[in-house]
Amino acid sequence: MNIIEIIIKKRDGKELADDEIAALIAEYTAGTIPDYQMASLLMAVFKNGMSDRETASLTGAMMRSGHILDLRPVGYTVDKHSTGGVGDKTTLIVVPLAASLGLKVPTMFGRGLGHTGGTRDKLESIPGFRTVLSEPEIIGQLNTVGAVMIGTSEEIAPADRKLYALRDVTGTVESIPLITASILSKKCAEGTDALVLDVKTGSGAFMKDRAGSDKLARLLVSIAKLMGKKARAVLSSMDQPLGQAVGNTLEVIESIDVLRGNGPADVRELSLILCAHMLALAGTVRTFKEGLRLAARNLDDGSALRKLTEIVSVQEGDVSFIEQPEKFVRAPIMSDVVLPSRGYISGMDTYEIGMAANLLGAGRMQLTDAVDPAAGIVVHKKIGERVSPGEPVFTIFTHRKHCIDTAVQKLIAAVRVSKKRVTPPPLVSKTIS
Amino acid sequence: MNIIEIIIKKRDGKELADDEIAALIAEYTAGTIPDYQMASLLMAVFKNGMSDRETASLTGAMMRSGHILDLRPVGYTVDKHSTGGVGDKTTLIVVPLAASLGLKVPTMFGRGLGHTGGTRDKLESIPGFRTVLSEPEIIGQLNTVGAVMIGTSEEIAPADRKLYALRDVTGTVESIPLITASILSKKCAEGTDALVLDVKTGSGAFMKDRAGSDKLARLLVSIAKLMGKKARAVLSSMDQPLGQAVGNTLEVIESIDVLRGNGPADVRELSLILCAHMLALAGTVRTFKEGLRLAARNLDDGSALRKLTEIVSVQEGDVSFIEQPEKFVRAPIMSDVVLPSRGYISGMDTYEIGMAANLLGAGRMQLTDAVDPAAGIVVHKKIGERVSPGEPVFTIFTHRKHCIDTAVQKLIAAVRVSKKRVTPPPLVSKTIS
Repeated sequence: MNIIEIIIKKRDGKELADDEIAALIAEYTAGTIPDYQMASLLMAVFKNGMSDRETASLTGAMMRSGHILDLRPVGYTVDKHSTGGVGDKTTLIVVPLAASLGLKVPTMFGRGLGHTGGTRDKLESIPGFRTVLSEPEIIGQLNTVGAVMIGTSEEIAPADRKLYALRDVTGTVESIPLITASILSKKCAEGTDALVLDVKTGSGAFMKDRAGSDKLARLLVSIAKLMGKKARAVLSSMDQPLGQAVGNTLEVIESIDVLRGNGPADVRELSLILCAHMLALAGTVRTFKEGLRLAARNLDDGSALRKLTEIVSVQEGDVSFIEQPEKFVRAPIMSDVVLPSRGYISGMDTYEIGMAANLLGAGRMQLTDAVDPAAGIVVHKKIGERVSPGEPVFTIFTHRKHCIDTAVQKLIAAVRVSKKRVTPPPLVSKTIS
Repeated sequence: MNIIEIIIKKRDGKELADDEIAALIAEYTAGTIPDYQMASLLMAVFKNGMSDRETASLTGAMMRSGHILDLRPVGYTVDKHSTGGVGDKTTLIVVPLAASLGLKVPTMFGRGLGHTGGTRDKLESIPGFRTVLSEPEIIGQLNTVGAVMIGTSEEIAPADRKLYALRDVTGTVESIPLITASILSKKCAEGTDALVLDVKTGSGAFMKDRAGSDKLARLLVSIAKLMGKKARAVLSSMDQPLGQAVGNTLEVIESIDVLRGNGPADVRELSLILCAHMLALAGTVRTFKEGLRLAARNLDDGSALRKLTEIVSVQEGDVSFIEQPEKFVRAPIMSDVVLPSRGYISGMDTYEIGMAANLLGAGRMQLTDAVDPAAGIVVHKKIGERVSPGEPVFTIFTHRKHCIDTAVQKLIAAVRVSKKRVTPPPLVSKTIS
């Protein structure tokens, strides 16, 4: 393989062959292709795109760059994946809910980065909770409990880790085929048979425009199918944070609230929708509607909460925190944010809200940064709601006194207010299967 | 400066600011911007192009990355530059010819690479000839002799050397703004006031299609003017080798032949045209036609040959080789190449002829390879000429017995023959000023 010829081929808009893509990824992972050649190729891919065949080929090559879990001893498995957003804690609800309905859910996730949170950080705010399990432990727990909730191991798709780090510093992140291959190479290596994809759209999503999110959702479903998976995607709103809580323990507390049958309506609704799609994909129910009904039942009767307690217990977390969420340490500084104007909330820059939470200590800019579990934001008013004079729109939680002013400014700037009432955007605007 | 933001700006088709380009080149030359980020940016530039302002800004930044010669003590200077081809020995003729007419010509050149020859290798085949001079020596010689013929020093535009090496391995060579900035950053650092550009077009040129060559020629002239230089370009044919000789001493011998008033008509004609443009740019003549007349006179009366002898002598070369070119060592193997078919030569793959010469020892694939001065090819038949059965079309000269078969096959494959007589392409198809 001549890497320069491959770069030129892609640069000139031609399709790469499967064996060229396979060699490329194998040699890049092994370190025989240097970063500067891969960077040039990534920009050519960014500009010229990839065909579905090329994207599937890239996904397969990245999947094969590391260990592939063999979950056949578990039987049929179903997972969900979110493209990431602000306040998105559905994994904490959907995984135990689906497992409580008999599904086998081998979910693996990353850490938060930039403006988005990560499920791994949220779960690690439960004292003792282990997010690393061995392969026999994973298989054992899937057979006994029905779900694992663990971090993506270093051995899964190392090519993706290397490529993502390079894309991050070479302006080649927002490429739909590259995003697709990155997500699916990991999900395929993790061995799930079916996959429900929650593709976020709006100001807090990686894909901010609806057309781009729609394209990504469609490509994810097509490529997942080419990889032999059952797949479905929903396009869900990141025009505002999901629920009220943004920040690690704040989100765990809100999730427990939803699992108790309470909590914000949007978090509950999206969790039920995602779970219903998982049930439908697995064939447990015949219709999506039936899935919704079963999911609501197991949420309301405490089955899902009991399943979460079981998972936390088996993964050595302190279950007393699930039973009494008030045990979570609160941040020492708590302060309300009041808007200078009154009216109806008409829009939010969700990215900036995520960045404000990050600034308060809830997130990280680099994967090696430490996260403050108690830091974050509570969002009191959502799009369409009325704000009276003096009424707080946010409450911030932090240890970082010096960051408060900037975070508050960010939050105030992130909210648009109008005289007229605005209809909130639909929570799920599309389903792609 | 945030390099990732700059990459994204260029990737998305926006124009970079002067200070962004300046910082980019300064930091890349200093090594604080890594190759992988520059590679990604280069591919974005390749795909989206650059405005004239950006190209001039890049040229200036690359020029300022190293030493800039101050030739003001010499007065007005005029140089020529060729984009490189096969058998192009005009520098050896034009520089002494122009100097014999009173111009100050500070010419600097590179080594041959790939299918093209380099003036430096040709001149270094004259025993003793020094192609490295200090700045005081350059100024002194320009004042006394009127010309220097030297290699581009390491201190000239180091950013170009670093960028070119990166472009070479990242599929980003054939970008017209990048080629322009590469050529002009060096020429501007070398301090010339006016510049005649010989832009090659056809099968032996870097830009093989006429539209691309035309674009390059226009951009070179525009940017040279933006850099404060007087400039003109001619588009000259590389549809076949220039003259008959391809290879270092073979080309020196042919150049001396032209300087004696003999030699191939195309070499003589192109040399006169380039020299006439130099005279016109410098204001020595009022019309191009007058320039042609003066140039022909000084070629025919031996003034130009005497000037070459003077330059060789001052630069410590053995002038007896200029006076008796038969002193040059011949290659031990000399063999005629006969075509399997008869008819009229209708076309040539000049690139392949250059690669055959390279294979015989006349060139190099990497800048560290050694060159055999005596190796090369003599081209007996040019486009439009008739080939009778058994008549040789080429003669090859080499030390490398094992390479003969492959070189001969390349040469035979490089020639197209037709039953009907074909009109040869014009030597100079366009002049851009």
